[in-house]
Amino acid sequence: MFEKLKAKKIDIEAGENKVILNKKDAERMGLRSQSRVKVEFSGQSTVAIVELSETLVEEGEVGLLQRVAKKIDVDAGDDLTVVPSERPKSIEHIKEKLEGKELSEHAIDEIIQDITDRKLSDIELSAYVSGIYANGMTLKETKNLTIAMIKTGDKIEFDKHPIFDHHSIGGVPGNKITLLVVPIVAAAGLLIPKTSSRAISSAGGTADIFEVLTNVTLSISQIKSITEEIGGVIAWGGAVNVAPSDDLIIRAEYPLRIDPYAQVLASVLSKKKASGAEYLVMDIPVGPQTKVVNMEDARKYARDFVTLGEDIGINVRCAISYGGQPVGEGIGPAIEAREALAALEGKDVPNSLIEKSIELAGMVLEQGGLAEGRGRTQAKDILTSGAALDKFKEIIQHQGGDPDVTSDDVAIGKHHHEIHCNRDGYIGGIDNHCIIEIVRSAGAPYCKGAGIILNKKQGDQVDKDEVLYTIYSDNKNSLGEAIKMANHLKPISIEGMILEKHPSYRLV
Amino acid sequence: MFEKLKAKKIDIEAGENKVILNKKDAERMGLRSQSRVKVEFSGQSTVAIVELSETLVEEGEVGLLQRVAKKIDVDAGDDLTVVPSERPKSIEHIKEKLEGKELSEHAIDEIIQDITDRKLSDIELSAYVSGIYANGMTLKETKNLTIAMIKTGDKIEFDKHPIFDHHSIGGVPGNKITLLVVPIVAAAGLLIPKTSSRAISSAGGTADIFEVLTNVTLSISQIKSITEEIGGVIAWGGAVNVAPSDDLIIRAEYPLRIDPYAQVLASVLSKKKASGAEYLVMDIPVGPQTKVVNMEDARKYARDFVTLGEDIGINVRCAISYGGQPVGEGIGPAIEAREALAALEGKDVPNSLIEKSIELAGMVLEQGGLAEGRGRTQAKDILTSGAALDKFKEIIQHQGGDPDVTSDDVAIGKHHHEIHCNRDGYIGGIDNHCIIEIVRSAGAPYCKGAGIILNKKQGDQVDKDEVLYTIYSDNKNSLGEAIKMANHLKPISIEGMILEKHPSYRLV
Repeated sequence: MFEKLKAKKIDIEAGENKVILNKKDAERMGLRSQSRVKVEFSGQSTVAIVELSETLVEEGEVGLLQRVAKKIDVDAGDDLTVVPSERPKSIEHIKEKLEGKELSEHAIDEIIQDITDRKLSDIELSAYVSGIYANGMTLKETKNLTIAMIKTGDKIEFDKHPIFDHHSIGGVPGNKITLLVVPIVAAAGLLIPKTSSRAISSAGGTADIFEVLTNVTLSISQIKSITEEIGGVIAWGGAVNVAPSDDLIIRAEYPLRIDPYAQVLASVLSKKKASGAEYLVMDIPVGPQTKVVNMEDARKYARDFVTLGEDIGINVRCAISYGGQPVGEGIGPAIEAREALAALEGKDVPNSLIEKSIELAGMVLEQGGLAEGRGRTQAKDILTSGAALDKFKEIIQHQGGDPDVTSDDVAIGKHHHEIHCNRDGYIGGIDNHCIIEIVRSAGAPYCKGAGIILNKKQGDQVDKDEVLYTIYSDNKNSLGEAIKMANHLKPISIEGMILEKHPSYRLV
Repeated sequence: MFEKLKAKKIDIEAGENKVILNKKDAERMGLRSQSRVKVEFSGQSTVAIVELSETLVEEGEVGLLQRVAKKIDVDAGDDLTVVPSERPKSIEHIKEKLEGKELSEHAIDEIIQDITDRKLSDIELSAYVSGIYANGMTLKETKNLTIAMIKTGDKIEFDKHPIFDHHSIGGVPGNKITLLVVPIVAAAGLLIPKTSSRAISSAGGTADIFEVLTNVTLSISQIKSITEEIGGVIAWGGAVNVAPSDDLIIRAEYPLRIDPYAQVLASVLSKKKASGAEYLVMDIPVGPQTKVVNMEDARKYARDFVTLGEDIGINVRCAISYGGQPVGEGIGPAIEAREALAALEGKDVPNSLIEKSIELAGMVLEQGGLAEGRGRTQAKDILTSGAALDKFKEIIQHQGGDPDVTSDDVAIGKHHHEIHCNRDGYIGGIDNHCIIEIVRSAGAPYCKGAGIILNKKQGDQVDKDEVLYTIYSDNKNSLGEAIKMANHLKPISIEGMILEKHPSYRLV
């Protein structure tokens, strides 16, 4: 039983593919809230989830929320065909995963296809993520998942080869190393088209940071041509339709704050493979407040990245890195862009940033056969010679930015506030999670100037009233929120050199 | 940071508690799609999930979807306070369950409180249901879950005692026995206030069926006064706010078609306890197409219902019943109401209906100490004497219906279609799922007259061209859909007495 209903556009940006039906039409069609319908118009179609209304949508109308209206090119008042749609078979496969069963290649293909087509409701999508989190996946399932995620999106096909890439599985604030690795590698003559994410739960993704200096919204053909011309690109991955199911799956992972292991592997490798990578250096930061909390888990990731990489045709090498505190001194889009640029300019920046960048860039150079056993040294040479800075400016220019920018030009938050130390002692630790919370309160990643500059790092000696860190924001209100948050969270712990005395006496 | 925003009502009946913010306001407030806000107005408040719009809601406005507008008594244009709301702690407990951990009493209380307050999004709610399904619950957790579900709703408090009840965990079509059990038990002088559900995935819940004969939407005080006056009530449970989290949890279970074991136990017992039950007889139908597929699972349910009942102060007895085919001959609201009434009138109805009803009613009578060891006989006497019919009419009248109704008065679907047998043989089996699908296609439970009358049941001998069953509907289109479905699904299998011959020869 199908109906012809008149299109009405409803400007709501919901996560699900949704249409709104009048209650009476829905009843006649045997539909209710959460039912699924197929909406068709002159050869275009999409499956959508139904919500009901008595007045917003009249009888004989169908309300198309933004996402559906974008998918079907239709004018208000056009006659659409609306027909009840079958329950996707993939839901049964999701149920099998909740029951602890191993999923077949076909089952995984169906799930990822339905996620990509937005046929699943939030409830169903969440059950998928929950199932993978609760019961895991075998390496065989993970491989099939990776391939399914590649198949359902676009691919970047390069004419020149080989293609190198690097990626950090994240969780460490201040990790702006991509802005050093890419120009070093490209300056050495290798091709490294790096696509990066925006912040999901962090204070700023690489795309948010590099956007301070140039445009990062590039098309597939721009990524291809710039890479083949100058060797390097740093683009926002969200602008290209590469492994599109990943972003949809993240929609369910984010509110639950879960990162199912198999999904992390598949997410990274599918994006890299679809983006053309043949060689990949992975950064796996380990620390109590990163995604990977101990060496054992890090080694498992490393092994599985290498194995899965082989299975799908990417040569993967992994570096397990120190993630116990932020990398470098700055956290927040503009602050990190400025720090990276300063490092490339040869200015004085924290050693942790230089060290980590040249180690990882060196691994890529060695993969490329350019520097057997001495990649780190060669990477350092490229950095100190200024060749990396030249390449960086070339990349900025080709992506549409100003190549004459210097670190002094980068504007950071107009307002700032210093947080002082309330005693003498040593920095015992810096809490990554708390740092991120404060930086987000200050307005990052949307407010580019928001962030923190650390004046002290772990192990540093500190005197009472010295500045521990400075919070920046472009918005006074947000700065106030961030200061409140900072006073509440106390992200930096100060310790004396004597931690305890035994036996301890206390006078009553 | 809070904002004063002007209320705008948006007539959408979404499952989640939702508000719509203008994109610019949301950005300034650091909110995005799926963020949570607290909405306050003159002492009333609720937590809602955010969606964004550019035009449907202007800057300075907040769009309240139906559910939020119902909760906060507000006029369009009133100034509401909207403030970002914390992530509920219960989400961390849901995550613990996904990780296979045992939840504390406190954790379960938080989850159920947040579900009841609609603080969780669909994604979060689904993760809860998924976690219970994937990892189960201990009996201790299940007990705490049951108590949490009771605490978060209203209770029916009777002045007279003891209170009896009965319940079927369902899954068998045609199971109209409540319409016999309640009047038999009440006619014996016991108090049995039965609250029933409407159809979720079935062709008609007891409330849908009894609604054909009288009003089932009763308040708590009506349920109390009618029960204390005449002994029995059959009311729609959805009209009272008893264990309200149950319906919200079902919202996530339904699309996934999962019934987590612990949730079934807690759902039944919380509703019964909050409805005042002190004695409960459970019907656990077993069959390949019911909720409980084998005797082992049925016995586990029975043991756990008894144990949990003891824990929360209900004396529970369980009957494991045959659920291999529909009970009686009719499926669908009006058809079942008519069949039940005919049984009470002493007319000729299938033995399966009479047998099951008097067995279960007899168990209640024995629990009540009225008929030690001979409950079944006493129940049968009450039925055949006409005392049950008199009580049934009294109940119909007290709930607002016509007590003079007879089974001949009950109108069933105007249109019908007979399905004939295409060969001689025996009825090998009747598929419950397929029967339900066909009856729903015919329009049940919304169309009261829709349904099926079975002319043959399992084991019956049947000749070619004899009528197997008849489909009814008030709507010709729906009848057509149901016929198509019937021809496709073939819910009744016909077998010769010889099922196979070996070895089998086939000429090529």
